Amino acid sequence: MSIILSEYHSPGLSVNWTVKKVLYEQQSDFQQVTILDLEEMGRALVLDNIIQVTLKDEFVYNEMITHVPLFTHPAPERVLIIGGGDGGAAREAAKHATVKQVDMCEIDGKVIEACREHLPETSVSYDHPKVNLVIKDGVQFIKDHPNTYDVIVIDSSDPIGPAVELFGADFYNNVHRALKEDGLFVCQSESVYFHQHIIKRVNDALKQLFPITRVYTATTPTYPGFLWSYTMASKKYDPYDRMHVEKQAVQTRYYNHDIYNACFALPNFIKEGLE
Amino acid sequence: MSIILSEYHSPGLSVNWTVKKVLYEQQSDFQQVTILDLEEMGRALVLDNIIQVTLKDEFVYNEMITHVPLFTHPAPERVLIIGGGDGGAAREAAKHATVKQVDMCEIDGKVIEACREHLPETSVSYDHPKVNLVIKDGVQFIKDHPNTYDVIVIDSSDPIGPAVELFGADFYNNVHRALKEDGLFVCQSESVYFHQHIIKRVNDALKQLFPITRVYTATTPTYPGFLWSYTMASKKYDPYDRMHVEKQAVQTRYYNHDIYNACFALPNFIKEGLE
Repeated sequence: MSIILSEYHSPGLSVNWTVKKVLYEQQSDFQQVTILDLEEMGRALVLDNIIQVTLKDEFVYNEMITHVPLFTHPAPERVLIIGGGDGGAAREAAKHATVKQVDMCEIDGKVIEACREHLPETSVSYDHPKVNLVIKDGVQFIKDHPNTYDVIVIDSSDPIGPAVELFGADFYNNVHRALKEDGLFVCQSESVYFHQHIIKRVNDALKQLFPITRVYTATTPTYPGFLWSYTMASKKYDPYDRMHVEKQAVQTRYYNHDIYNACFALPNFIKEGLE
Repeated sequence: MSIILSEYHSPGLSVNWTVKKVLYEQQSDFQQVTILDLEEMGRALVLDNIIQVTLKDEFVYNEMITHVPLFTHPAPERVLIIGGGDGGAAREAAKHATVKQVDMCEIDGKVIEACREHLPETSVSYDHPKVNLVIKDGVQFIKDHPNTYDVIVIDSSDPIGPAVELFGADFYNNVHRALKEDGLFVCQSESVYFHQHIIKRVNDALKQLFPITRVYTATTPTYPGFLWSYTMASKKYDPYDRMHVEKQAVQTRYYNHDIYNACFALPNFIKEGLE
């Protein structure tokens, strides 16, 4: 028998991953939570039929959504991750010497259960002494923590299903309020090739609230369109000013400080799309 | 009826493109040459069932394989493109003010016929006054032109079928011989995520011949693994020394001089793979 996970990236493009084994499958209150062992990418967390992380490329996304904002803040101590249930972003954040506490707020306890059992490579962070894992709605959590965080990472799924509120203006207002006066945050803002309208909408909304907004990119083989965008919004620190500041060494597989300096260089068509 | 182009990127991953129309289909002496109109990517040149260029993303590859080497040479006049039958690389090369002649050597006349008829956006270069289109075996052509070129671009298909010789040590020797004493060349060197052994093999071979070899990357949605590598080998000019030199303006959709400076920043896992 041959099992295939088919993902529809657009009406004219589907991607088929050969499944070696289904390791976990549960319907939660929010979504269908599945762990698959994929022939090409190893074990993967799949939510509502969409790959979230795989062992073969999770390091790209988890390192880029974490180290870029954490190295933009000169001395981050308190970090909040909204979503990020696989634990990979928290694992990376905890590597920073200045970071004292990483609050990780995941809405879906089944995601935590599945990753704890089947993705120890990322969920290892759940028990890290710096990490405070909370199973709650991030939208409410962030309202309850004004003026608390140096860096917030919105590690959400796509803007459909449980994550839809995480792309709205109300939520961004609460993120702004939860940040300290020199705080900054980053969110994943979808595919450069397939979702340019989302990148523009996110950026337009954030420009209303923050003096500094910057888009950066990294390539992840399991995400639609493959060139993935991240949007950073900051009250004080500008990554452009931080490119030549000496930074702590950090053990990583994708990220390095040359990548930090390079990831903000945008192709012309993306720059034009943001105007 | 629904027609699908299925590409097998690896044993565990296939990518399915919905085909609106088959515009051209011929068996040449070398390969099956097809032009498809794809739902997601527009018209596409497909050789032996593998997408070579599509209208939606050809600019990424064609600009990056051309402008990066041409802006590394301070005043390129004579350029050779081996392969590149769609014409996109020649179109880009002809934009450079210093360039006087672009020899474009494509082995397969059927590719030229198909692209002339169905891909005017790239094949427009065939009739450009700077472009000299030659339908010949590039392996022989390069042997016949010692000490002739400032920049050579190897715009080949994958190292199977007609392009296999273009990845061999004998060929690289002839490229070295065809370059002037300060010449440089670039070749596409396959996918960062799926073909790391090819990147290493290409680089190891070129290091035997050239004092300077550099790898750079760009993301192309229609190529396997999506983060695509290019290897540059140079007799004299180092792109690292050219990053802050003022460069001519050029009308492009992906490339800009910030991208030039950024594209050589390699993720840790690629750097380690090259060691």
